[in-house]
Amino acid sequence: MMQLQEERFFLPDPAQRRVALNLHTQVKDLPLVCVHGHVNPAMLAASSYSWGSPVDLLIIPDHYIFRMLYSQGISLEELGITPKAQESHFTPPDHRQIWQTVCDHWHLFRGTPSSLWLRDELRNIFGIEEKMNSANAQKIYDLLEEKLHSPVFQPRQMFESFHIEVLATTDAATDTLDHHRAIRQSDWSGRVIPTFRPDAVVNIDNQHFAASIERLGEVSASEISGYRSYIAALEQRRRFFKEMGATATDHGATSTYTERLSEAEAERIFQRALQGEASADDARRFTGHMLIEMARMSVEDGLVMQLHLGSYRNHNALLHERFGADMGADIPTASEFTHNFKPLLDAFGRERDLTLIVFNLDESTYSRELAPLAGHYPALHLGPPWWFFDSLNGIRRFFDNVIETAGIYNTVGFNDDTRAYPSIPARHDLWRRASADWLAGLVVRGIIDEEDAAEMIVDLAYDLAKKAYKLKI
Amino acid sequence: MMQLQEERFFLPDPAQRRVALNLHTQVKDLPLVCVHGHVNPAMLAASSYSWGSPVDLLIIPDHYIFRMLYSQGISLEELGITPKAQESHFTPPDHRQIWQTVCDHWHLFRGTPSSLWLRDELRNIFGIEEKMNSANAQKIYDLLEEKLHSPVFQPRQMFESFHIEVLATTDAATDTLDHHRAIRQSDWSGRVIPTFRPDAVVNIDNQHFAASIERLGEVSASEISGYRSYIAALEQRRRFFKEMGATATDHGATSTYTERLSEAEAERIFQRALQGEASADDARRFTGHMLIEMARMSVEDGLVMQLHLGSYRNHNALLHERFGADMGADIPTASEFTHNFKPLLDAFGRERDLTLIVFNLDESTYSRELAPLAGHYPALHLGPPWWFFDSLNGIRRFFDNVIETAGIYNTVGFNDDTRAYPSIPARHDLWRRASADWLAGLVVRGIIDEEDAAEMIVDLAYDLAKKAYKLKI
Amino acid sequence: MMQLQEERFFLPDPAQRRVALNLHTQVKDLPLVCVHGHVNPAMLAASSYSWGSPVDLLIIPDHYIFRMLYSQGISLEELGITPKAQESHFTPPDHRQIWQTVCDHWHLFRGTPSSLWLRDELRNIFGIEEKMNSANAQKIYDLLEEKLHSPVFQPRQMFESFHIEVLATTDAATDTLDHHRAIRQSDWSGRVIPTFRPDAVVNIDNQHFAASIERLGEVSASEISGYRSYIAALEQRRRFFKEMGATATDHGATSTYTERLSEAEAERIFQRALQGEASADDARRFTGHMLIEMARMSVEDGLVMQLHLGSYRNHNALLHERFGADMGADIPTASEFTHNFKPLLDAFGRERDLTLIVFNLDESTYSRELAPLAGHYPALHLGPPWWFFDSLNGIRRFFDNVIETAGIYNTVGFNDDTRAYPSIPARHDLWRRASADWLAGLVVRGIIDEEDAAEMIVDLAYDLAKKAYKLKI
Repeated sequence: MMQLQEERFFLPDPAQRRVALNLHTQVKDLPLVCVHGHVNPAMLAASSYSWGSPVDLLIIPDHYIFRMLYSQGISLEELGITPKAQESHFTPPDHRQIWQTVCDHWHLFRGTPSSLWLRDELRNIFGIEEKMNSANAQKIYDLLEEKLHSPVFQPRQMFESFHIEVLATTDAATDTLDHHRAIRQSDWSGRVIPTFRPDAVVNIDNQHFAASIERLGEVSASEISGYRSYIAALEQRRRFFKEMGATATDHGATSTYTERLSEAEAERIFQRALQGEASADDARRFTGHMLIEMARMSVEDGLVMQLHLGSYRNHNALLHERFGADMGADIPTASEFTHNFKPLLDAFGRERDLTLIVFNLDESTYSRELAPLAGHYPALHLGPPWWFFDSLNGIRRFFDNVIETAGIYNTVGFNDDTRAYPSIPARHDLWRRASADWLAGLVVRGIIDEEDAAEMIVDLAYDLAKKAYKLKI
Repeated sequence: MMQLQEERFFLPDPAQRRVALNLHTQVKDLPLVCVHGHVNPAMLAASSYSWGSPVDLLIIPDHYIFRMLYSQGISLEELGITPKAQESHFTPPDHRQIWQTVCDHWHLFRGTPSSLWLRDELRNIFGIEEKMNSANAQKIYDLLEEKLHSPVFQPRQMFESFHIEVLATTDAATDTLDHHRAIRQSDWSGRVIPTFRPDAVVNIDNQHFAASIERLGEVSASEISGYRSYIAALEQRRRFFKEMGATATDHGATSTYTERLSEAEAERIFQRALQGEASADDARRFTGHMLIEMARMSVEDGLVMQLHLGSYRNHNALLHERFGADMGADIPTASEFTHNFKPLLDAFGRERDLTLIVFNLDESTYSRELAPLAGHYPALHLGPPWWFFDSLNGIRRFFDNVIETAGIYNTVGFNDDTRAYPSIPARHDLWRRASADWLAGLVVRGIIDEEDAAEMIVDLAYDLAKKAYKLKI
Repeated sequence: MMQLQEERFFLPDPAQRRVALNLHTQVKDLPLVCVHGHVNPAMLAASSYSWGSPVDLLIIPDHYIFRMLYSQGISLEELGITPKAQESHFTPPDHRQIWQTVCDHWHLFRGTPSSLWLRDELRNIFGIEEKMNSANAQKIYDLLEEKLHSPVFQPRQMFESFHIEVLATTDAATDTLDHHRAIRQSDWSGRVIPTFRPDAVVNIDNQHFAASIERLGEVSASEISGYRSYIAALEQRRRFFKEMGATATDHGATSTYTERLSEAEAERIFQRALQGEASADDARRFTGHMLIEMARMSVEDGLVMQLHLGSYRNHNALLHERFGADMGADIPTASEFTHNFKPLLDAFGRERDLTLIVFNLDESTYSRELAPLAGHYPALHLGPPWWFFDSLNGIRRFFDNVIETAGIYNTVGFNDDTRAYPSIPARHDLWRRASADWLAGLVVRGIIDEEDAAEMIVDLAYDLAKKAYKLKI
């Protein structure tokens, strides 16, 4: 049993398992480089922070969990998610009751990564070995509640006990980064850096675009009257983020489309967008143009450029209307890179000092387009499996489909991409185990030798991410 | 050898195999719930039925088998398939000769599910252990012929020896269900229920559409003069099917497209279709509209809604012309759900009491679209791997690509989907073995424990199907 | 260690490994049938040939290798690739320095097929056991250089020591096949045959189309004034190739589109193409038409028709401009066959004596379209995994996704498709090992028995290719 826990997630062949365990042992205590994620910096900005209840910590912010419960007929209200508009009839349920509901339905998560992350979290952080179920729900709730009041479970203490070397947050282009400033000015030495995410001021199909541009003008202390001043304001914000420690930007779009617009055309679309008159085609072209423009800025200022492409956000229309964004209803779409990325790659794909990191949700592109592109263009690197695919099978498919063509050195290691702070160690450990298992499979088949495997496991677990995100300082 | 037979289809690792065998043992004798298939109810309507020759039983109705032989240059005529039109030169070959031809080419099926099903069928039903080949073809034919005349191989006796708990057939919306009535009125207690399949009166691009609507008017005793009376007639037929025991409907379409038409537009297209003047675009939009309309009826009458989407029927034009439909030339097409299903899901995806079961032939949609959608929308469930993918690798890919995102509880267990009656136990057993093997793989990697696996194997083998199809009575 | 080398590439389960090793032993010494590839016939045309330096042999012609190095920021110039136009500042580096650069970066290839091929090549052909690295680079260079001057490493001697039974080259339709003639007229008995590849005179979107047609007129001694004389010239060239030993043609296109044009329309497009006025749509339709026309010719003259579809050639625009074609920048595209191939298959898919062999780079089409089509149409066969997918995982995915639906007898065994002559044995051995391993997996799971496996391994390693390419003479 103890052995199974030590060897968890490894394929069962004893010879392969010996190699995998040996490789995992070499990296299990390496620091965590958290190069991309959505942790709220506020909780690290002050020396003391209240997590609220176990449900506030583990359920309400985790759309992986309430998505699955919702799919089986449990309403978001029953899980404590509050509708946007005040609804007179809504009284959020007691958190003990919510926890009971989650435990009553915990079987739904059998075989999912959520069950593995939470199991490891309870075991390794909170010392809870029991499997969640209806009978022990309240007992576990009691234990969690007690721990959350202890100083060792304060965010900064966790940061240290998790061995986090650096944590990158993801922040709107218009964010003033006050929390980051507070952290830098505090006597706490944890390294927390921002990431420049300009979606709201680039994707003109969002309904708050004009307001976002106004806000952009304010924070950049500039008047944005047209495309040229808009670009200047973005460049100014990037400088500010860089001063505040950022090494990377991040860009989200449904489509992979890129196109270089003339300045005149960019101006026309930008003006239509400000008037709320831009079409869907305008939006697609403007975002496609701005991806190239952002790559141009990255060549100039050295910020690593991440692209998260292919998610149809807020697919469930009525749910979006009632509860807002990020309600577990973002659905992947089929993606195409070979044609769509050509304008971007013709412009900047040959730049050796540019790092473009692509994340995508259409796994059929791995072997067909992404690995061949990354195995050719100097600038292009592949992010680890994103979102639904940050799982044992997802990671295995990524390795099996990408590495033969692109090698591991055109990939960038792992990132946890989470807002669930206490799940960070479990996620990195799952990646490290999956990597060790995959490498062990290469060793026992004589594809690589153990000497190479020993270097590759450190690269996958630690070095590749640190190097790609320019954190080797 | 005996051990290999007991452990057949399991991965070779001894530890995993022990777990798999244990799990399989727990479900191998559970009754079969045959929730979707194409068995001809006529053969169960009378207490006595003649199968004809072994070729009539095993070859002529099985397009899996003659498809492969045809691909290697054996004509359908050589296999006893009769052209539609009287062709003066056609004399069907002797069935002994056909059987010999099949056995002479049986090596073509190495590694295919057809070879596994037929091997298990011969062994477990007919007691024939030998591998089919040129030399023993006539001996096996003799054995089969003899058995087929024995009372224990009568359809009703097989139904009982197979432990079939319920068998759903698939029936045209205009079917009068006389065979089902005969079964219900007989003294035989086997449960055989119809399924409402309205393709011929919904897909307006079939050349017999007007005639089908006329027939719909007759059987529903209504005059169908326009869209509104057409809808009423469909609702009437659904009530009739439900009275006759149906718990489900089934819908086939090449495209996944859905769109809600205004009544006026639906009326216009319907009238064009009756006149034989509908365009391909009309057909796509009308089917897409009717899928939503059928979901609306399911919300009202409680019938489970199955969707079999993505097959290009009768791809081989000349073959279709000479021999008609279902000649092994239905070919999958690429599918898209995220955009195409949004109108359907916006309308009814949030309904907790609706069960939409989707089957598709583009495996790239499993992880990219179907699992994320099923892991969010309460109404949406995923059918087991369909057709070409009802195989060991197909089932493995389904589990590996779907479950991490959707869990097993947004899937609906197994259905055999066959018209080959004696293959039913072999198909269910293959599914149960594949499920046991997959669960054993989770156990030995510490992803689930044996307690969970023991519940999951019963769910996959029996409970999920029964529950999803509302057969828990 | 010796055991690992003998069992390399096999899955680790000991029982499966025993079966795999046994199967591999049965075929490892079978002759190599090299039915498709890009070896330069010039080097076999004379009894003596100079390879140049180890870099000339192993690096400069291998776009798999320089593609990966380029992706990590090493310029093509640093690797000895010469820009097309005379560039005054360009001095190619010393070959010893290039070899050092390759060895310094050899870790990039860990886990890739290139590393396996080159390792086996060095070990089995040149007797070099050491793993390439910075320290031993010059020593290995010395060893290779010495060997390359030895008579046993002459191309014809290698041909014999490799046990090559037949080697097909790939040759432009306008090629005069002088090297092939020289080989046939020599006293050397090696069988080297041409393959008719008419891309340059069929794909009208290449900039040299008019010149290619002029050349076609010259070599066919005909005046090509229009579509009809163009077709006649192509037929004439096919006759010539056939006389020179060809048994096959080969056709490359980005798109899978096929369409039968009227002769009048074909004529109009052909004339526009000669004038350099053809549109992209013209090009797509003309190629699609010519694929059908070439199938018609194959029905008539019996040449096997290969189709390599789905590669976007020369994706990196500036690189193409500076260095020309084949610089490692050909990128796969998503493909569709069910609709696009229907005109071709309706015309000739039912022909039993026609052999169409399809190669594609979109693996999602394997199970969705290609295997179902090949498992139905008599003419259609599937080529082995192409290019990026001629790898351990690529071969495994091909077997796992194709065989359950199409069987192995609608596939055509292996071809090495290489211009890297000394890598031929390593490539065939990798395929034979992957086949043995896959078959062993079927045996230990009771899917096939060892008797069937013993026949299948010979089919996969040797017979299927020989038969499909009509080389059984």
